[in-house]
Amino acid sequence: MNVELDRDRFVETMRYQAQIGATEDGGLHRLTLSDADREIRDWFAEQMEAEGLGITIDEFGNMFGYREGTDPDAGTVLVGSHLDSQPYGGIYDGQLGTVAALELVRTLNEADIETKHPIEIVNWTNEEGSRFQPAMQGSGVWAGEHELAEEYARTDADGNVFEDELERIGYKGDTPAEPQREYEAGLELHIEQGPYLEENGKDVGVVTGVVGFTWGEITFRGEADHSGPTPMHHRRDALVAAADVITQIRRLPDALGERTVGTTGHIDAGPNSINIIPETVSFTWDLRDPETAVIDEARERVLAEAERAATREGIEWEYTDRHRTDPVQFSEQCIDAVRDAADSLGYDSMEMVSGAGHDAVHVAKEMDTSMVFAVSEGGKSHNESEFTSWDDCYAAANTLTNAAVSLATADR
Amino acid sequence: MNVELDRDRFVETMRYQAQIGATEDGGLHRLTLSDADREIRDWFAEQMEAEGLGITIDEFGNMFGYREGTDPDAGTVLVGSHLDSQPYGGIYDGQLGTVAALELVRTLNEADIETKHPIEIVNWTNEEGSRFQPAMQGSGVWAGEHELAEEYARTDADGNVFEDELERIGYKGDTPAEPQREYEAGLELHIEQGPYLEENGKDVGVVTGVVGFTWGEITFRGEADHSGPTPMHHRRDALVAAADVITQIRRLPDALGERTVGTTGHIDAGPNSINIIPETVSFTWDLRDPETAVIDEARERVLAEAERAATREGIEWEYTDRHRTDPVQFSEQCIDAVRDAADSLGYDSMEMVSGAGHDAVHVAKEMDTSMVFAVSEGGKSHNESEFTSWDDCYAAANTLTNAAVSLATADR
Repeated sequence: MNVELDRDRFVETMRYQAQIGATEDGGLHRLTLSDADREIRDWFAEQMEAEGLGITIDEFGNMFGYREGTDPDAGTVLVGSHLDSQPYGGIYDGQLGTVAALELVRTLNEADIETKHPIEIVNWTNEEGSRFQPAMQGSGVWAGEHELAEEYARTDADGNVFEDELERIGYKGDTPAEPQREYEAGLELHIEQGPYLEENGKDVGVVTGVVGFTWGEITFRGEADHSGPTPMHHRRDALVAAADVITQIRRLPDALGERTVGTTGHIDAGPNSINIIPETVSFTWDLRDPETAVIDEARERVLAEAERAATREGIEWEYTDRHRTDPVQFSEQCIDAVRDAADSLGYDSMEMVSGAGHDAVHVAKEMDTSMVFAVSEGGKSHNESEFTSWDDCYAAANTLTNAAVSLATADR
Repeated sequence: MNVELDRDRFVETMRYQAQIGATEDGGLHRLTLSDADREIRDWFAEQMEAEGLGITIDEFGNMFGYREGTDPDAGTVLVGSHLDSQPYGGIYDGQLGTVAALELVRTLNEADIETKHPIEIVNWTNEEGSRFQPAMQGSGVWAGEHELAEEYARTDADGNVFEDELERIGYKGDTPAEPQREYEAGLELHIEQGPYLEENGKDVGVVTGVVGFTWGEITFRGEADHSGPTPMHHRRDALVAAADVITQIRRLPDALGERTVGTTGHIDAGPNSINIIPETVSFTWDLRDPETAVIDEARERVLAEAERAATREGIEWEYTDRHRTDPVQFSEQCIDAVRDAADSLGYDSMEMVSGAGHDAVHVAKEMDTSMVFAVSEGGKSHNESEFTSWDDCYAAANTLTNAAVSLATADR
């Protein structure tokens, strides 16, 4: 038996949420713990209440809505994503997955469908990690990956403390930020943020795992000299060394794996003046692959290139590892549920590994998990031109709903 | 007949001026038109007055002190440099050349030496160009290279307007900023800011000309995508293209000329976030050589590489020429005067081309000109570790003094 979401209501709900923190160019600027975040949370709580869900706000602001099952001993199926956005980000990202979770319970209530397993929907705090680092913070605290006190103390660029901001918007709850029940399975719908579904002409993605990644920062310290009278052979130019490593990070993936990616997203130079040789340059690496060994190899090669570049320029260097996440392999049970749901609805699906981290990575530490991916036009995300057609949004939401229902009604 | 400066008084004067705007680490932070600039100007005016010089402050703040000659028809010899500094710069730079010009007139007065030609000493406004661009601004306006109104309207990083700041410190004079007399010759003492004198074991440099240079900015516009799920072949990474050109700017000089130098001193990336592919990267070029043809060739090759890099990444690019100065060949008369002065004092000198622009480049448009260079330890400048020994300062100041006296007493 398939359950079908009400397409009109679903699209209307997506459009409604996109107004809160809307940008002039059709995007979304709904940074975590901002006034816009409070507003979307208030709305989300109202919707959950209207559906008769049991609401829990935990001490880290994660919002849960619980729908009882028929078997008091059956584990809960957890479904959801996040409602915060990147600065001037898109309106789909994780919002789609949270709206779809809400539509799932609306649809079950409307059709009076009972499930053996309880279903709980969730909006995780600060998935984006742009205002406060790290990303996927709420699910990370909840899964025991991060220390509550440490994450409370994080500050944004203006020096605002996370805990103060959480209190300010009224979402510091009393429930400990940790699993409060037995969970059977977890599902998250998110846009792909990559081009594979579109390139392959598929309707939805069945996510089998998530690439791991390493983040770090390299700093070169050369010598600030006048750009005119300093001969080339006298220079210790930190930016030239950085350029060598940035080039290496661009080329490395071809030499390693089919799914390896490498990026320098951030660079700062000092004194950063047109006629002074750069003395200090700091820049980041972001290296990802589905295989742990490939990630390690990529990081080693980048550091080896930094050492060579520093030697060539005769300068000092240092590096800091900023973050590391191992690749995740999702569970067969949940992958099957997503694939079968897509098949039964007549959607053309493909299995894929997620190139981005998601709350589901933390959820997977607590329970069997998988994800549904929606098509991202041009693979674009984290900017206002992010786009997924309503057809593709609907296909993914329907897949999520039916996968959740099949897991929640399974005889386990 | 040689004139010898009073070494103790000269060193004491150098030390005195270095206190005004001194940094904790022994450098100088005396940005143009700052309170520290006002203080050093007040001091300089007092010293000139004490020597009985006829003081002129022109409408751009350039300060002149005139010492009469014996021949009313003889052209004036102009001697001086600048008293402003880079942010956290050194205490020698052009300050040495201005103090030496003051010591020149002190010495002539003390010894009651009359010269046929009048001698005028000068402190040029805003040589450094770090607070307000362009560099060598005061001498440029004076020599008719820049429009007064345009330069008045320049703003610093905080939005302060040049003309307002000039009035605020009380140095907007009434005299038009243009040559007010007939000039016979110009001389400027400056630290070398390069390593050639030290490497060759010389006492002073005889400057035969100044390299020309081209300044410009290249902007690449790629696409901001998520660093995880965007495959390498889908990327339009503005920073990778910039790295290619920065590398080219580093390598180019070897392929062009012995004295060619190329620098990227400034870079800005956006959105500049660890997990977003850089969308916009702007960075500068600074290319210098004694030959116009080589400068043009270097600029062409950099732009050609930018075009290739943009094509490789599939991105847009544009460039802006920011500044251009042709190489300058100083006059034989003045070069000879400097070389002969060094010889007669027993200093070991070498002829050299200046790698940096100086006020003397503008002065040379109005009169025969040359420069004296003082040894720069390690070639360092524009930072607090800039260093010239008092012996080397004194040798250069004595050379300047005697070159000026020989030009001022010559029978022309």
